[in-house]
Amino acid sequence: MLQPTHNGERFDLTTPTAMPRAAGFLWNQKMMMQMTCRGYAVAQFMQPEPAKYAYAPNLEAKTFMQPEQPYYAHHPGRFFYIKDDETGKFFSAPYEPVRAQLDKFNFSVGKSDLAWTIEHLGIRVEMSVSLPVNDVVELWSLRVTNISGGARKISVYPYFPIGFMSWMNQSAEYRADLGGIVASCVTPYQKVADYFKNKNFKDKTFFLHDQEPSAWEAKQETFEGEGGLHNPSALQQELLAKGDARYETPAAVLQYRLHLGEEQSRELRFIFGPAFDHNEIAQLRAKYLGKDGFENAKAEYEAYVNAGRGCLQIETPDKELNNFVNHWLPRQVFYHGDVNRLTTDPQTRNYLQDNMGMSYIKPQVTRAAFLHALSQQEASGAMPDGILLAEGAELKYINQIPHTDHCVWLPVCLKAYLDETNDYSILNEQVKSAEGDESFSVFERISRAMDWLLSARDYRGLSFIAQGDWCDPMNMVGYKGKGVSGWLSVATAYALNLWADICEHESQAEFAKKFRAGAQDVNESVNKYLWDGDWFARGITDDDVVFGISKDPEGRIYLNPQSWAILGGAASEGQREKMLAAVEQQLETPYGVTMFAPAYTAMRDDVGRVTQKHPGSAENGSVYNHAAVFYIYSLYTVAESNRAYKLLRQMIPGPSEQDYLQRGQLPVFIPNYYRGAYHQYPRTAGRSSQLFNTGTVSWVYRCLVEGLFGLKGDATGLQINPQFPKEWQHAKAVREFRGANFHVNIQRADVAEITVTLDGVKLAQPHIDNIVAGKNYQVDVVLPL
Amino acid sequence: MLQPTHNGERFDLTTPTAMPRAAGFLWNQKMMMQMTCRGYAVAQFMQPEPAKYAYAPNLEAKTFMQPEQPYYAHHPGRFFYIKDDETGKFFSAPYEPVRAQLDKFNFSVGKSDLAWTIEHLGIRVEMSVSLPVNDVVELWSLRVTNISGGARKISVYPYFPIGFMSWMNQSAEYRADLGGIVASCVTPYQKVADYFKNKNFKDKTFFLHDQEPSAWEAKQETFEGEGGLHNPSALQQELLAKGDARYETPAAVLQYRLHLGEEQSRELRFIFGPAFDHNEIAQLRAKYLGKDGFENAKAEYEAYVNAGRGCLQIETPDKELNNFVNHWLPRQVFYHGDVNRLTTDPQTRNYLQDNMGMSYIKPQVTRAAFLHALSQQEASGAMPDGILLAEGAELKYINQIPHTDHCVWLPVCLKAYLDETNDYSILNEQVKSAEGDESFSVFERISRAMDWLLSARDYRGLSFIAQGDWCDPMNMVGYKGKGVSGWLSVATAYALNLWADICEHESQAEFAKKFRAGAQDVNESVNKYLWDGDWFARGITDDDVVFGISKDPEGRIYLNPQSWAILGGAASEGQREKMLAAVEQQLETPYGVTMFAPAYTAMRDDVGRVTQKHPGSAENGSVYNHAAVFYIYSLYTVAESNRAYKLLRQMIPGPSEQDYLQRGQLPVFIPNYYRGAYHQYPRTAGRSSQLFNTGTVSWVYRCLVEGLFGLKGDATGLQINPQFPKEWQHAKAVREFRGANFHVNIQRADVAEITVTLDGVKLAQPHIDNIVAGKNYQVDVVLPL
Repeated sequence: MLQPTHNGERFDLTTPTAMPRAAGFLWNQKMMMQMTCRGYAVAQFMQPEPAKYAYAPNLEAKTFMQPEQPYYAHHPGRFFYIKDDETGKFFSAPYEPVRAQLDKFNFSVGKSDLAWTIEHLGIRVEMSVSLPVNDVVELWSLRVTNISGGARKISVYPYFPIGFMSWMNQSAEYRADLGGIVASCVTPYQKVADYFKNKNFKDKTFFLHDQEPSAWEAKQETFEGEGGLHNPSALQQELLAKGDARYETPAAVLQYRLHLGEEQSRELRFIFGPAFDHNEIAQLRAKYLGKDGFENAKAEYEAYVNAGRGCLQIETPDKELNNFVNHWLPRQVFYHGDVNRLTTDPQTRNYLQDNMGMSYIKPQVTRAAFLHALSQQEASGAMPDGILLAEGAELKYINQIPHTDHCVWLPVCLKAYLDETNDYSILNEQVKSAEGDESFSVFERISRAMDWLLSARDYRGLSFIAQGDWCDPMNMVGYKGKGVSGWLSVATAYALNLWADICEHESQAEFAKKFRAGAQDVNESVNKYLWDGDWFARGITDDDVVFGISKDPEGRIYLNPQSWAILGGAASEGQREKMLAAVEQQLETPYGVTMFAPAYTAMRDDVGRVTQKHPGSAENGSVYNHAAVFYIYSLYTVAESNRAYKLLRQMIPGPSEQDYLQRGQLPVFIPNYYRGAYHQYPRTAGRSSQLFNTGTVSWVYRCLVEGLFGLKGDATGLQINPQFPKEWQHAKAVREFRGANFHVNIQRADVAEITVTLDGVKLAQPHIDNIVAGKNYQVDVVLPL
Repeated sequence: MLQPTHNGERFDLTTPTAMPRAAGFLWNQKMMMQMTCRGYAVAQFMQPEPAKYAYAPNLEAKTFMQPEQPYYAHHPGRFFYIKDDETGKFFSAPYEPVRAQLDKFNFSVGKSDLAWTIEHLGIRVEMSVSLPVNDVVELWSLRVTNISGGARKISVYPYFPIGFMSWMNQSAEYRADLGGIVASCVTPYQKVADYFKNKNFKDKTFFLHDQEPSAWEAKQETFEGEGGLHNPSALQQELLAKGDARYETPAAVLQYRLHLGEEQSRELRFIFGPAFDHNEIAQLRAKYLGKDGFENAKAEYEAYVNAGRGCLQIETPDKELNNFVNHWLPRQVFYHGDVNRLTTDPQTRNYLQDNMGMSYIKPQVTRAAFLHALSQQEASGAMPDGILLAEGAELKYINQIPHTDHCVWLPVCLKAYLDETNDYSILNEQVKSAEGDESFSVFERISRAMDWLLSARDYRGLSFIAQGDWCDPMNMVGYKGKGVSGWLSVATAYALNLWADICEHESQAEFAKKFRAGAQDVNESVNKYLWDGDWFARGITDDDVVFGISKDPEGRIYLNPQSWAILGGAASEGQREKMLAAVEQQLETPYGVTMFAPAYTAMRDDVGRVTQKHPGSAENGSVYNHAAVFYIYSLYTVAESNRAYKLLRQMIPGPSEQDYLQRGQLPVFIPNYYRGAYHQYPRTAGRSSQLFNTGTVSWVYRCLVEGLFGLKGDATGLQINPQFPKEWQHAKAVREFRGANFHVNIQRADVAEITVTLDGVKLAQPHIDNIVAGKNYQVDVVLPL
């Protein structure tokens, strides 16, 4: 069912029915699109807020990207009906809306295109979509080939539903002058001020062809008729009716009547997207449907995606891991750092972590992002809930709700950047506040943030949670101003310790001492108030109720406090052993380690929204990969290599077909969650959210670099400390680091401790100093059995 | 195709395909539902803002009720699949989603129920829905009868899609203890404060049966499978799989396996609606599925609807008019006055006009509404943009945008109430402001509103328009604070004159003089600045551009300034003749008189949003019935009986089948518009919006009472002045007025002027004085030929 090509460049799925939601995604600097194997699409572009050009059939709410996106017959998609003009039989490619039993189906997800090959009724359909780097336009090509062994007369109907564009104004018609169907609307608004905001919107949707069609239809209802999408009435006519839409739901349908000899093919190209006016449409036609338009765009786009290839190529006994790490993981990391989830106000913690991942791809982007984020630091030292990226952007939705964790991410994420680049000069950069009235160095700003963290604690020395910490929907623990977060407390200790290390590097001994003492103080409080005997509690509510403890029937144990207590030093070795045992027993499932358990089944109104979410999904008891990877990362810091690898491997979709079936996830990205509640709802456990926006991936990359392959930078060079699972005997890696390439060969042998040979010379320590950019190094590593 | 029953109590439609949107509606004090002939439904209830219990398949925007509601395969609806268990053949009633070619179809719209009779595969399906008066619950009954002439084994599957309830939490399962399927969700929210607002929401949707089913399914996807809604996979199994939904889209599907002998029937009942908890569901079950539950509810509901039967029963040569006026029009008027369009903040002009209509039905409601509205008058004398009806309600959407016409409606609407009731005592009622710090009598308050209207004028003496007048989307004429409204100016004159009359009645001569002089001043300004030679202009923009004039290629002539210039006295008789000719020539179409013409085809950004709406729909060049009826009313005030009747008759859907086909409107309510742009887009001209919320209907009733039948009250009694179209030779009416019943018989004869005989005694004047409540009067009227 699932066929990776030999070099891992593509993943192919050979049946459309098993995983209706299995999806790939493409993005560029202005848009993104996700498509399922069956042809449903979610696409949006920035103007500057996310907008659509193919709409639902009703007035859809503007919302964040939905996990487990519900699909339904009239959901936006990209479809091609193929009809035998002699028999009247037809099917649709890739699968929807007709859902015919196809002779062959292949959905092939590449890094810079999505492609399908379908065979039915003696016709092969090859279709693919790609994006250019800079325009908001989908580039579609379609090849139909007669494989029936005789001459054929067929009609090919691209059907791109446009949907309900606007209650205010919508229409569509075929424009011979522009070469396709153009739909127009006015984005609905009520207030005068919005008119000026909206007047430059791209309110037109075009669907242009490179070859003139035999007929067309621009009105959804006419195309569909009484037959419905699975059997459109318009297909029963010889020719489409060439109709228009006037305040009726638009659709773009063309008809090509083709005569194909044996083995004869015909290729057609189309472009689909939004535009401001006819002039812009004409320009896009010239650029992409002119000579070499697709070819040039493809070459540029491949170069663009390749620029995000990452700093680690691996060759291990685990082929699926190799494929994922060499091709898909850095692409997903790059996507996050490249376009910041296509929002204008990313949550601060997301912005910092997404850019942490860019340390391994384009560290200059990380650097700029840090400076930008710090320019929005508040006068108190606190970081805002979101970082504004565009002129006129506003903090929306969740970013209007006070969370207290944002400062933590400054040293945590900066540390990865410093380790990778050794660019401590960033600490001396002066950063003006957004209002321009204050200027501090990065060092000063982060120190102020650490001071803020120390100050934002209660009488016990624990960190206030306000209306949420890393866990957004834990919104009622501390909304009265008293509740504290166990996780944030141990995370504060971790941040303070990391920052103290950096202070020491900068010869700021007083600062180092203060923050180290602060961390110790926090950890003492945590141990005094939150240690529950076998694990740390999640927090204490406004009304002094400790939760996430053994006597809670639901939400008894949370993962994050344990992971970060390990990272931040709150946990002794003895405590750690108990914690790991408790996590293994209560949180691990066949689909990964859940964020907490048991999932809440009803509202607990001293905890909040998290307890109202569906059990097993998102924050309520799911395998929330972002939390899972923190745990994995913490395991690597204490050399729990086998545990770490097992959980890491569960996170990457696969390896078995059975697993794909349950999860519905192609191994081309890590989703933000797999459903949990394994014991309560085994039927749905493990199911993928299909959401590729997640802070998980930069941490997975960090785990690979620092943990599994142990090729982590420091102030003097590269540390070598692979932490392989016990079953691996050897593996290879190529590590790009500070401009040099390290060809690393790792194998196990009967040695007492790790030995490292550099270009044939055995090193005294597993550490490479004096790295020369541009050089290639051969590194041979021997690990104990 | 369309069959009114002999007494006009129901309208029956005998084909499902011609008018897919043809709809009826039901409401009660907490909810409303509109259903198409094919089974699609739009239902909402108040908690206190409008909410749903059957949802779209995606996250739908919360919005005002859409005109020309788009339907699509997964739109919420109420369906019953019927399967022959022996052959596997099936169809669905009433029509969707299978769309089988039925042997018989009948959609019957009653005043207190909607009913269908369908025959196919030898099975008759009779289904109906009704509402109780006070609960949010749909009462469904289904009778299947074997009419095939032999014994049959069938399965009956009620399928009530529940849709995508929430991204936060949704599930559904069969509950044997409650007797049906119960779906649960949490209304999504992000902010703590919303938790407290939402925690009492009815977030459960139940579908309960009176008889135990053979099987069930609660998950949409399982029911539908690969077959799709037109051919659900679950129907290919002997029994439904008894599945549940866990964060999956819920549906309520039951299966009844029935053995029916020849002519044997089986009746099933179901209730569908929202609830807070299982306890409430159990109570609703006991109330409605217990003994006589449906019967009691039906009797109560019929009494409720009958209480809104109106004050005029007619018998004219025009049977369709009789049916509509005797049954449907007062019902629609009652609906508006009864529940104020199921909003918590009706626009002030709508609230006053809807309650004006109640003067003819339940005048005590009108009285209370006036007092309530005036309690929200601003200190300046201005009326707010919306009237808040519920605790915690807020001005939303369009009500946040400043409009300047609201004061006009006070005397205009009050006049109808006073004429009907003679209750001038209302003028002496003291009304405290909402904050309780000011108290004025109604007389004082309306006088202050008139002063405000006089003050809100520019240096020319014309009324400022701000961001809109009666025409909401004319939002850019005066947003800079300078533009003026021609319509509002002439309407101000009308309001001032009406109020001056009332001042005179109250012996307030000084007030009367002031306001009469004000009206004259306004009218002089209007004539000076806005008379365009053949009609009055619509306004003058902020930049001094007069618009709605002969040299405008689009939006050349507007209806409202002409209608209200007639009412308010701005137009001389000579001007009026020119205006009527211009209206006839430029605005009248076979589907009614359009609000302006030609429709705008592009944005005119000194006029506003109206020019961005789709040509021919709503405010852009449509037959906007609210504007049309003002014109008709003005025609009656100047004895243009034939013109008035022609336009009035066009507004009431019918009479020809062809006309129904084009309009798609059953003659059970007047929609807010029929599409215009008759010359530009003839294909779609005349099409009904299907929206039954409209200020039109109270004015249509007023036209019938005061104009066509000329049975209008005044301070001393009842005026008799019928204005029949020339083709009518006789007609009858029963007029309820101030507690008495007038049996009026009108006929034409060769007389010089109208003569009226009261209980056999000829009156000197066509006016009845000294009316005694409780009495029956016989009135014989003779009109000149």
